[in-house]
Amino acid sequence: MHETVAASPWSPATVVPVARGTTSTPLPGDPNTRFGDMYVIDDPLTEGPSATSPAVGRAQGFYLFLSQHELAAMHYLSLVFTAGRYNGSYIVIQGRDTIPAKVRELPVVGGVGRFRGATGYGLLRMHSFDSTTKNAVLKIDMYLNNMK
Amino acid sequence: MHETVAASPWSPATVVPVARGTTSTPLPGDPNTRFGDMYVIDDPLTEGPSATSPAVGRAQGFYLFLSQHELAAMHYLSLVFTAGRYNGSYIVIQGRDTIPAKVRELPVVGGVGRFRGATGYGLLRMHSFDSTTKNAVLKIDMYLNNMK
Amino acid sequence: MHETVAASPWSPATVVPVARGTTSTPLPGDPNTRFGDMYVIDDPLTEGPSATSPAVGRAQGFYLFLSQHELAAMHYLSLVFTAGRYNGSYIVIQGRDTIPAKVRELPVVGGVGRFRGATGYGLLRMHSFDSTTKNAVLKIDMYLNNMK
Repeated sequence: MHETVAASPWSPATVVPVARGTTSTPLPGDPNTRFGDMYVIDDPLTEGPSATSPAVGRAQGFYLFLSQHELAAMHYLSLVFTAGRYNGSYIVIQGRDTIPAKVRELPVVGGVGRFRGATGYGLLRMHSFDSTTKNAVLKIDMYLNNMK
Repeated sequence: MHETVAASPWSPATVVPVARGTTSTPLPGDPNTRFGDMYVIDDPLTEGPSATSPAVGRAQGFYLFLSQHELAAMHYLSLVFTAGRYNGSYIVIQGRDTIPAKVRELPVVGGVGRFRGATGYGLLRMHSFDSTTKNAVLKIDMYLNNMK
Repeated sequence: MHETVAASPWSPATVVPVARGTTSTPLPGDPNTRFGDMYVIDDPLTEGPSATSPAVGRAQGFYLFLSQHELAAMHYLSLVFTAGRYNGSYIVIQGRDTIPAKVRELPVVGGVGRFRGATGYGLLRMHSFDSTTKNAVLKIDMYLNNMK
């Protein structure tokens, strides 16, 4: 999951702000983020962490900073596959991302196509983070049951 | 599902924009829609496609254009029944709507009342679309398990 | 669930508006609320209704007024536990809150940690409401299956 906050000539931003919280105090650890901020994302998904690793799909959805005192966001996300045996199928996940934590568990709430009726969870980890641009590479491992 | 974008004296708009994406490029096929746009809807649900067909409830929720390169939205929707044997019950669905596709599958993520514990999916199809007003009639067929 | 709309020196607001509907007519029963309004919340959860009752966690998420003719909101909410045997676990609920109703049923859509794979529902009731400040204390009873 390749999240590009700062656009460059060869890579457009994959995240856009759509709403801003109205409190005056930023969250701890990030002076530009406030309780209530909302972002929409469409991040490329690749097999491995390199940007040139084969594309498997997109992570599309939004996240919301919903904690007053912590740098924590809620993800409302679909993992949409565009290649391989899951091409055309997607998983819906919805869960909390306590950003400083090493591993974040996100429950699966639904699925479509080959993931119809699937249950389970994902484990999200930061692979790399550029503190200047805020661009990030995230790793997500999915554990699924009841697949077709 | 009767979606009225353009209000008329006999029919108010059933969809309102609440947030706008900040990218400058519109999505393919619609010059007025951008990545990140968010709309809240409260559409009448009727048995058949005619506006005078018996009312069964409302489709209430929001959708978000979450693809950078495709005219695709994510629905976060409740189908709330206000008549018949499901009066007072509702189903929660959450899924991706690739607008040019003929059939879109949307997973059920929860239910209440007679739909408590229900699982399954819906198939969404465009029944008719007025390209001038953008008003649309959509058909949704629900396939449910574990009902009371 | 302690919702503080009006901040005071000893208690900050736990709810912030992030988006506004664009219709001109307010909803019945509340001249300040319109179809499409969206709020982000981070409310303290305590064992009992008193603000000095032991803290058990936070209710974090957002709600959206998604009915054109009723004072009804949709909750997209996590109950995050920060104390006791569920410390570090959370439940995701998503459901409709018809505000004048005595009891509102909200389906569980997912869970994490000790709530991994949990299904069920919550019953939400207003415990007390201050009509001047709009501060509210809400009671939520959870009924869960498939817990670890």
